[in-house]
Amino acid sequence: MLEVYAFATPNSIKVPIALEELGLDYALHGVNVRQGAQKAPDFVALNPNAKVPVLVDGDLVLTESAAILVHLAEKTGRLLPASGEGRARVFEQLFFHASGLGPAFGQSGFFQRFATEPQPIAIERFLGEAKRTVSVLDGVLSRHRHAAGDAFTIADIAHFGWLWRREFAGVGLEDTPHVARWYADIAARPAVQRALSRVDALLPSA
Amino acid sequence: MLEVYAFATPNSIKVPIALEELGLDYALHGVNVRQGAQKAPDFVALNPNAKVPVLVDGDLVLTESAAILVHLAEKTGRLLPASGEGRARVFEQLFFHASGLGPAFGQSGFFQRFATEPQPIAIERFLGEAKRTVSVLDGVLSRHRHAAGDAFTIADIAHFGWLWRREFAGVGLEDTPHVARWYADIAARPAVQRALSRVDALLPSA
Repeated sequence: MLEVYAFATPNSIKVPIALEELGLDYALHGVNVRQGAQKAPDFVALNPNAKVPVLVDGDLVLTESAAILVHLAEKTGRLLPASGEGRARVFEQLFFHASGLGPAFGQSGFFQRFATEPQPIAIERFLGEAKRTVSVLDGVLSRHRHAAGDAFTIADIAHFGWLWRREFAGVGLEDTPHVARWYADIAARPAVQRALSRVDALLPSA
Repeated sequence: MLEVYAFATPNSIKVPIALEELGLDYALHGVNVRQGAQKAPDFVALNPNAKVPVLVDGDLVLTESAAILVHLAEKTGRLLPASGEGRARVFEQLFFHASGLGPAFGQSGFFQRFATEPQPIAIERFLGEAKRTVSVLDGVLSRHRHAAGDAFTIADIAHFGWLWRREFAGVGLEDTPHVARWYADIAARPAVQRALSRVDALLPSA
């Protein structure tokens, strides 16, 4: 049985989505990052970087959501082309998400919501970069149905994580119709719905 | 012939290092990002995300430095284990670099050097995160010689890019002896020296 340590966060959600798409059984363990559980000693022993998600697959304890996506895709031979341009485009989008869109969304939300004093220069920088990266993704999605080509791949799962939490970052999809069309497609997938339900159930009831 | 569009930047340097390590011939084209050449129409046609580096390999135009590293490693069957834990660890470190260490270094440098007004909250956040991620890497390098295990891989090349430009981020290696030992090892590799020379030659002489 695969074990997943996660919470209802933009990076966490990617792993249950992949597992549901691949039809793999897994146990989902909640790590309440709102209460700082990712910094508790037992969790830091799993991930010294103190971040969710973590996958435990037999003896392998693996961190970094996109590395987990690659591992699951290669384990099953699905959601990642075996060679050629399609494969290169999946990695290109995974790294564009990991280094560009994801950090911009995260920092945009942080400086709008959690900074102890108003931070107009930082907000302008990160909200602008969040909108710019979504616009770049819109260009990608204007040329084909999914993020890395015509087929659904782990690149779509990665981008979905932060687009699902775009309100946190202050980003809407009014000006990026191709992203809006793609987002509705992905959100409607039964496996995605199942993953969202399981992750939402980790949230304490009010 | 492979074509590389790059400059003397932390992400650019990774590609020439990989090409030199792999013994592949390449033409290196300078894109002077200090003068905004990455935003010129002819370059944006290559990379709509307006960033260096870009690799042109026949019909494939590929962006994102780490995606280029994966492409070159898989093209040659080197610097990336074909399966098992070693392979998973390479991707884990590539994504830890792309989403964590790299952005923290970049933002730390930006807010210390380029913000139009003093930004103490942002500097504390990003300099702190830059130091924290180097400390996480120090833990990794305390357990084995290289970033993803005993062997030199593309994960070392990725981390080297930003560690090479650590002064920009305001990060030293005094408190992370394993990173210091590793950095000296990587910097001394003949292929790394050749790549640094070629990239430094792109800088206009004063």
